[in-house]
Amino acid sequence: MSGGESDGSGGLVLLDVFGSPFAQRVRIALAEKGLAYKRAEQDLAAKGDLLRRSNPVHGKVPVLLHAGRPVCESLAILHYLDEAFPATTPLLPADPYARARARFWAEYADRLHFCGKRLWLRRDGGGEEAAEPEAREEMVAVLRALEAELGRKEFFGGEAFGYVDAAAAPFAAWFLTYERHGGLSVAEECPGLAAWAARCSRRESVAANVYPPEKVYELVQEYKQWVLGRK
Amino acid sequence: MSGGESDGSGGLVLLDVFGSPFAQRVRIALAEKGLAYKRAEQDLAAKGDLLRRSNPVHGKVPVLLHAGRPVCESLAILHYLDEAFPATTPLLPADPYARARARFWAEYADRLHFCGKRLWLRRDGGGEEAAEPEAREEMVAVLRALEAELGRKEFFGGEAFGYVDAAAAPFAAWFLTYERHGGLSVAEECPGLAAWAARCSRRESVAANVYPPEKVYELVQEYKQWVLGRK
Repeated sequence: MSGGESDGSGGLVLLDVFGSPFAQRVRIALAEKGLAYKRAEQDLAAKGDLLRRSNPVHGKVPVLLHAGRPVCESLAILHYLDEAFPATTPLLPADPYARARARFWAEYADRLHFCGKRLWLRRDGGGEEAAEPEAREEMVAVLRALEAELGRKEFFGGEAFGYVDAAAAPFAAWFLTYERHGGLSVAEECPGLAAWAARCSRRESVAANVYPPEKVYELVQEYKQWVLGRK
Repeated sequence: MSGGESDGSGGLVLLDVFGSPFAQRVRIALAEKGLAYKRAEQDLAAKGDLLRRSNPVHGKVPVLLHAGRPVCESLAILHYLDEAFPATTPLLPADPYARARARFWAEYADRLHFCGKRLWLRRDGGGEEAAEPEAREEMVAVLRALEAELGRKEFFGGEAFGYVDAAAAPFAAWFLTYERHGGLSVAEECPGLAAWAARCSRRESVAANVYPPEKVYELVQEYKQWVLGRK
């Protein structure tokens, strides 16, 4: 297996699914770093041999293959990109304390996903009516915690788009879905975070790698029908 | 707040609970690194102001205060110790790929905790009879995955006790509890992992910071009675 990085892709192959927010984190990070790579879209309903071999434990995307060696888990991949390509723009700050803080908040951003799912994937077939009040309250608390961490900065990374931004940006395109299913307004609850989401959506690395909010909403509706139809 | 490191504790204060496996990770790491610190045992049933201020998001232990600044989440703390005290024995390996792999498996070790809980905290009051078969199967799968990653090495870190070892070692003292509640034998299912657990238990950093397996089992029984009594 060649370890060479002269083929323009740096030997990087990303096993992913375009709509997966976790895979989007990695594509955003690769774009921010200007690293070329090949995408290999996966069919999660019929997992291929390469995915099963590359991530035997979870069988999930994203997996980044670097010179054939698999790196799994989105945040571990972001870390890896910083460390394996030290000449590229770093995602994590240099200061140990700032790094610890970034790790904390990047992990925390996962809550958007899990709490969001409680809003839109309701077993009762839900629709547009108000979601369970606890899930709505929890989502507002998560959004507010993120807004407090953002503070008055442009990005979580400060003036530079960084690790937490790459981790959270895919979910910015989901805010509309959270709003419609949760009966909430991100702009009203958290104007600073809404402005951050707008800044992210205008950024090339993000715009090229996430679906627009209306498309996310449509896909979520389709997915939901499919999941609930199987129950 | 002083940033000085001349008081012998390096300005390190650990908010923890002795029996918490997540707090134990940090104490093991501090011991491995030879870093002095002050322990501040917390009462999770009546959280104090310092804990609530230091970890307003989760309100959980462990929290490491370094010169007054809080670092939260056990694995983020381990990372921080490597980066803030670069002259100490590192937990993570130097190679980027080995680091990514260590991050993956340290996260994976959390499964011992969550899967273990399904074995011992049964809502029906359980006791010693066979646990739900899916939970038992999942635990065996988790143990086998860890054993496969360990391979023929002394420690997950190779010859040196490292990041994954510090993350997983607290759970080695829980193996007896998993065995009794899950009706399984770690030594039979995963002899290599059982040998690793024995090596960990003889290690000073581990022995001084975890309860012996029989004590863990007793405490789990007490905790379980208390939890189930509240339902």
